[in-house]
Amino acid sequence: MTGRLYGLGIGPGDSELITLKALRVLQTAAVVAYPAPEVGESLARRIAAPHLDGRQEEIAIRMPIHDASFPKDDIYDGAAEDLGRHLGAGRDVAVLCEGDPFFYGSFMYLFGRMAERYPVEVVPGVSSLTACAAALGAPLAARNDVLTVIPAPLDEVTLRSRLEQAEAVAVIKVGRHLPKVRRVLADLGLLEAARYIEHATMTSQRVLPMASLPEDAAPYFSMILVHRRGEAWS
Amino acid sequence: MTGRLYGLGIGPGDSELITLKALRVLQTAAVVAYPAPEVGESLARRIAAPHLDGRQEEIAIRMPIHDASFPKDDIYDGAAEDLGRHLGAGRDVAVLCEGDPFFYGSFMYLFGRMAERYPVEVVPGVSSLTACAAALGAPLAARNDVLTVIPAPLDEVTLRSRLEQAEAVAVIKVGRHLPKVRRVLADLGLLEAARYIEHATMTSQRVLPMASLPEDAAPYFSMILVHRRGEAWS
Repeated sequence: MTGRLYGLGIGPGDSELITLKALRVLQTAAVVAYPAPEVGESLARRIAAPHLDGRQEEIAIRMPIHDASFPKDDIYDGAAEDLGRHLGAGRDVAVLCEGDPFFYGSFMYLFGRMAERYPVEVVPGVSSLTACAAALGAPLAARNDVLTVIPAPLDEVTLRSRLEQAEAVAVIKVGRHLPKVRRVLADLGLLEAARYIEHATMTSQRVLPMASLPEDAAPYFSMILVHRRGEAWS
Repeated sequence: MTGRLYGLGIGPGDSELITLKALRVLQTAAVVAYPAPEVGESLARRIAAPHLDGRQEEIAIRMPIHDASFPKDDIYDGAAEDLGRHLGAGRDVAVLCEGDPFFYGSFMYLFGRMAERYPVEVVPGVSSLTACAAALGAPLAARNDVLTVIPAPLDEVTLRSRLEQAEAVAVIKVGRHLPKVRRVLADLGLLEAARYIEHATMTSQRVLPMASLPEDAAPYFSMILVHRRGEAWS
């Protein structure tokens, strides 16, 4: 009997925002794997930590996470082989995924390599998208709003044209792209309507108007929400 | 002491996809409220049912849910007043929301009426968006994809122009708009890439290629996912 590979959405940061289903799989899988930086603590491991008793085999998939030039393929090839050995021996493997596995998650790299060879199940989780809206205290989208999720690394022209047409927008992966996003928002007259959310639902959560954000760089786990009407419900 | 109003994301359908936090609030609030059709069972109540012991006060907010001509304002005004009485008497009120409260949820109507007068907290939930991707077994969006969520009730010209530019798309609220959406997808050559998901994570879940969907109408809780590249990870 082959084991099953789980892509486990463990939510946006608050350990209490894990689902009962993810908790059950987390606590019964023989092997728990998670992305981790080259050195130091895995965020996914930290979110799940209160629910782990340390008796499961753990595999950290380590890589320089935000270095685009790094040959990630080798790491994922190796991880897929490693996890595949456990599955082949009949052991279930739970891969911890911050937020939701299929919402811009790195789980897709393992999924692409393993889904044809092993049974895979994705357990959806609370995504950063809705966590940020909750942290902000404002509806993300309502009625017949078109909601557009735009990754900040896109070039300025594309970013601008996408933002220009959108009603409700989430700009994700802000990081070092903050000055570019700020410029485009200002050009389009949307700066006053934009809200910045960092580390939603974590103890380090910050929420503030874009217009009063002092920094020129943001963490990777930050988002900018804009609604053209100002408030989705008005 | 005023009570607290909770917008409680209880997930997309599977009762096990509720978060630990939503479960805690659900089981400790003095009052549990939920949207319900004019006659019959509330879907939100059904999702939460395994977690309720029947000792809390329950309030069904009843209305002809998908009848656009109905004067919803009166119902929400009445419900806000009703819930407000409980809050004023110091009782916490948990409003059950399918999926996530701020992702196209009707909770915003209560939020808009009550957020200035009472303490309100939104507990984010697993949305239908990521639940459908999990049900389909394919990433929603990845890397620098722009993800667009498009409500099917939009007129055909708008629908077409939004779909034309999008990379990864979720068409929501399909319902009786299915023939229109099918026509636009076919015109744009996207029919083969489109997948239909109905009642994701419920026992009645259906997943099939749009091209082989026989019906001309879909339930309200259905979604069409399209990725221009075919597969988000390829």
